[in-house]
Amino acid sequence: MENKKALALYSGGLDSTTMLAIIKSKGYKITPLTIDYNQRHIVEIEFSKKSLLKLEIANQVIFNIDLSRIGGSALTDNIPVPLESADNIPSTYVPARNTIFLSIASSFAEKLDIQDIFIGANVVDYSGYPDCRPEFIKSFEKTINLGTKNGIEGKRFRIHTPLIEMTKADIIKNGHELGVDYSLTLSCYNPTSKGLACGKCDSCKFRIEGFRQAGIPDPTKYK
Amino acid sequence: MENKKALALYSGGLDSTTMLAIIKSKGYKITPLTIDYNQRHIVEIEFSKKSLLKLEIANQVIFNIDLSRIGGSALTDNIPVPLESADNIPSTYVPARNTIFLSIASSFAEKLDIQDIFIGANVVDYSGYPDCRPEFIKSFEKTINLGTKNGIEGKRFRIHTPLIEMTKADIIKNGHELGVDYSLTLSCYNPTSKGLACGKCDSCKFRIEGFRQAGIPDPTKYK
Repeated sequence: MENKKALALYSGGLDSTTMLAIIKSKGYKITPLTIDYNQRHIVEIEFSKKSLLKLEIANQVIFNIDLSRIGGSALTDNIPVPLESADNIPSTYVPARNTIFLSIASSFAEKLDIQDIFIGANVVDYSGYPDCRPEFIKSFEKTINLGTKNGIEGKRFRIHTPLIEMTKADIIKNGHELGVDYSLTLSCYNPTSKGLACGKCDSCKFRIEGFRQAGIPDPTKYK
Repeated sequence: MENKKALALYSGGLDSTTMLAIIKSKGYKITPLTIDYNQRHIVEIEFSKKSLLKLEIANQVIFNIDLSRIGGSALTDNIPVPLESADNIPSTYVPARNTIFLSIASSFAEKLDIQDIFIGANVVDYSGYPDCRPEFIKSFEKTINLGTKNGIEGKRFRIHTPLIEMTKADIIKNGHELGVDYSLTLSCYNPTSKGLACGKCDSCKFRIEGFRQAGIPDPTKYK
């Protein structure tokens, strides 16, 4: 079990916090990588710090890349967050976000000599983002192993998505058993500056329904 | 020919400047994307601006991502640039750089509704970087078309590498015919702050030898 190192993309949300608890329980030494992309819900980074203290995981790396320079999303542009569920990919989609995040994660992982990279992507209770799907993740894994020194020299990267096929209720039940304090996590796309959730966006809806289906009281503070 | 739009990664070096001249001659309206990654040879960005003026290409986007936060390379860390050619991948390799750059390029391209992305990667007179090889580029193209809204909705991205199989001499001959002023380009990994080239690093060696083989006078200013 020794030297089992993981680099985990970590937003401070419900999914990635549960993911950290799961991989910690499996004995990994975790480097959490949090991306400050000038997102609308930047207060999630404050939540991430609180959850890491609670989970007793140190070494958080916060990396800045200002995706509002690119825009094209309700999360980075001055476009309202939609409150109605869409039939297709909603405006909260951020162009190529997970490709960018996984690229940065791979760069850090190569520098730190880590082969196991984790991302909390999920395709059950989700908004239809293409870069959460298993076929994308699998293809990225292949690409990064062709495009890095470690990848071609036999230290292959593995991209893990432990939550990918889980329902939101199952994610919450798992985290609950592992002692995750969900009051320290933020899912909302449009929170107040102090982190009160709107209760109306897609992400809030999935979260509320997840707690209901799991039969676990929802500790989220709504505005 | 109308609406033939290209997004081109553009460093200000010999290769990517030649690439811009080539794709301009083919009638593309070009958005040049220059990445300031806090590279040692950041003066190349000043060269890029001069070449763009000469080429009469506007709309340069300069995007910041501080890869020195990650490090692991002689181009971003306080490690000397090697002056001897290496048998394997040299320390000027930057972990996952082209994956990161192509991801950012794809995000901009999706926002700007551009499907044709260009990168000046080359595998003939090069330093063995894995993320310049055709198999990597092909795999990235597949990945980005799985991980973006445009990609899955039929506006597929095409990643073009017009220089990939050319010798340095052929690149120079091509650019020369198209009127590229190579005195406005920088290849050196370790230039002075005013942009005088060292003449000794891998990149300078390929450039010097390229001009020699092309039979064209080298206008580079060496220190």
